[in-house]
Amino acid sequence: MVVDYKQDLIDAVKRVHNYVYQTPILTSSLMNSLTGAQLYFKCENFQKMGAFKMRGAVNAILQLTAAQKEAGVVTHSSGNFAQAISLAARNLGIKAYIVMPSNAPKIKIEAVKTYGGHIILSEPTLASREAEAEKIVQEKGATFIHPSNDYNVILGQGTAAYELLQKQPDLDCITTPVGGGGLIGGSCIAAHFFGNNCITIGAEPATMDDAKRSLQAGEIQFNNGGLTVADGLRTHLGDLNFPIIKQFVDDILLVEEQQIIDAMKLIWQYMKIVVEPSSAVPLAAILANPGIFKNKKVGVIISGGNVDLTNLPF
Amino acid sequence: MVVDYKQDLIDAVKRVHNYVYQTPILTSSLMNSLTGAQLYFKCENFQKMGAFKMRGAVNAILQLTAAQKEAGVVTHSSGNFAQAISLAARNLGIKAYIVMPSNAPKIKIEAVKTYGGHIILSEPTLASREAEAEKIVQEKGATFIHPSNDYNVILGQGTAAYELLQKQPDLDCITTPVGGGGLIGGSCIAAHFFGNNCITIGAEPATMDDAKRSLQAGEIQFNNGGLTVADGLRTHLGDLNFPIIKQFVDDILLVEEQQIIDAMKLIWQYMKIVVEPSSAVPLAAILANPGIFKNKKVGVIISGGNVDLTNLPF
Repeated sequence: MVVDYKQDLIDAVKRVHNYVYQTPILTSSLMNSLTGAQLYFKCENFQKMGAFKMRGAVNAILQLTAAQKEAGVVTHSSGNFAQAISLAARNLGIKAYIVMPSNAPKIKIEAVKTYGGHIILSEPTLASREAEAEKIVQEKGATFIHPSNDYNVILGQGTAAYELLQKQPDLDCITTPVGGGGLIGGSCIAAHFFGNNCITIGAEPATMDDAKRSLQAGEIQFNNGGLTVADGLRTHLGDLNFPIIKQFVDDILLVEEQQIIDAMKLIWQYMKIVVEPSSAVPLAAILANPGIFKNKKVGVIISGGNVDLTNLPF
Repeated sequence: MVVDYKQDLIDAVKRVHNYVYQTPILTSSLMNSLTGAQLYFKCENFQKMGAFKMRGAVNAILQLTAAQKEAGVVTHSSGNFAQAISLAARNLGIKAYIVMPSNAPKIKIEAVKTYGGHIILSEPTLASREAEAEKIVQEKGATFIHPSNDYNVILGQGTAAYELLQKQPDLDCITTPVGGGGLIGGSCIAAHFFGNNCITIGAEPATMDDAKRSLQAGEIQFNNGGLTVADGLRTHLGDLNFPIIKQFVDDILLVEEQQIIDAMKLIWQYMKIVVEPSSAVPLAAILANPGIFKNKKVGVIISGGNVDLTNLPF
């Protein structure tokens, strides 16, 4: 089957339009003078449930058949995708089963409940999470939706970069954080097909450099148990998004933990927006690599704003 | 002299247009469902230097004569107006003298320096601050600009509500925090002359209820040394803004300290924006008075976002 990325993204944009916010784009003269670049921040922290993940969840669910919708959906996630599937499913009137590790923070479990997700606790291992999700698929007939390695999820996430390019068609570059590969996968499709020579550059914590190594090795690499403040980026790429990333992403930059925290504080202090640590990773990379971005027009996808306000890293 | 509030505000809008941001208006379905009202947040936390005060400072400075501009301006303030005059003056190429109490937080003194203001430290009493400012007027020929009791400052602050009404002409009500009276003074002019039966309701901390008592007594009342987390609202009304407020403001509501803190956290957590405690006072009043605001379209002026991120009240 030949995949038509361009048309598929256009279809996704139309499909999700009424179910997600067309989030604002902010600029900051201070950020421009600090980086020497012209930055355009696409604020997915203002998205429903507070993160871009809503886009992919909506796009995936909207393509289910009536019978599939009747049986509901299932995913395993302890983060924003759990909330996204819960809210998207509720808004579309279907049932969502969320497999979460038993050691997930109470605040995240509560958030999923708020959005109406049915929580199934698993052992805190990937194997156990996958097994519990598979059980729901078998027992309930629910459709499994992967947080990042799902073509419809990837396309949904790409709609943020598409909207950004509609407003700023002359971007030289789009930057995103890199976790499971859904956001950068969708964004690089948008940049390649709807930008004007617009490249895509990813950014990830140096302690979670799996994507950088994957691009270098030409096959998916994994993390080795490092730690990062950017808790949304601990995952690795998948077999559906990696080929897209390999084809359309120019480079992936690494940043240190302190650079992430400093960039996050800069955004809060001077842009007056609440963003999660993962969202600050691209700005940290831009600040650390002035040679790459100087005098360029750069889109920055602010991935989300779900953060424990009583436990900030600065 | 007959004052033409309506024309004067239109002139101010045109005058400041190129020197301030036309800040975004945010809505939140969660805030609407919590309050039972439709809320439109005018985000002056995204204004230059992080607060609405920039508008009044620019409008006042732009009306100086060439000779006055040559000699510079002076104000006394330890808060946002000090930064606003410093930045507005620098952007317009003139000198700003800022009288600050010697016990002002270092972070505020540094902020004024960042924007190029020349700081003169005074004893931490109002009498000393006024005396030091008067000395600058005498010695340097600088023009004194009061932070809130100055007609051009009042008009400048009113341009935020004017912009809000241009985008949302059918508001039933505009709410603002009440400190020195500049913001609510300008806002009620905008609501009265450019709204469609739009009333203005102020909100202030119960511990700083001078404006409420002033409206009741028909003359300016003062605070008696209370404390509030909303540190921008510790001042009292002035003889230039009080007559305007008396004429055009419908009511002033009081809120408790914990209500301010809770409303502030709600805004950060669900709207993903950084606001200072004073900005949360109107939302606290709306939450505490559902009978007044239910099913109404309400504009909320978010006054600013300058807050010490390492010392939050929640």
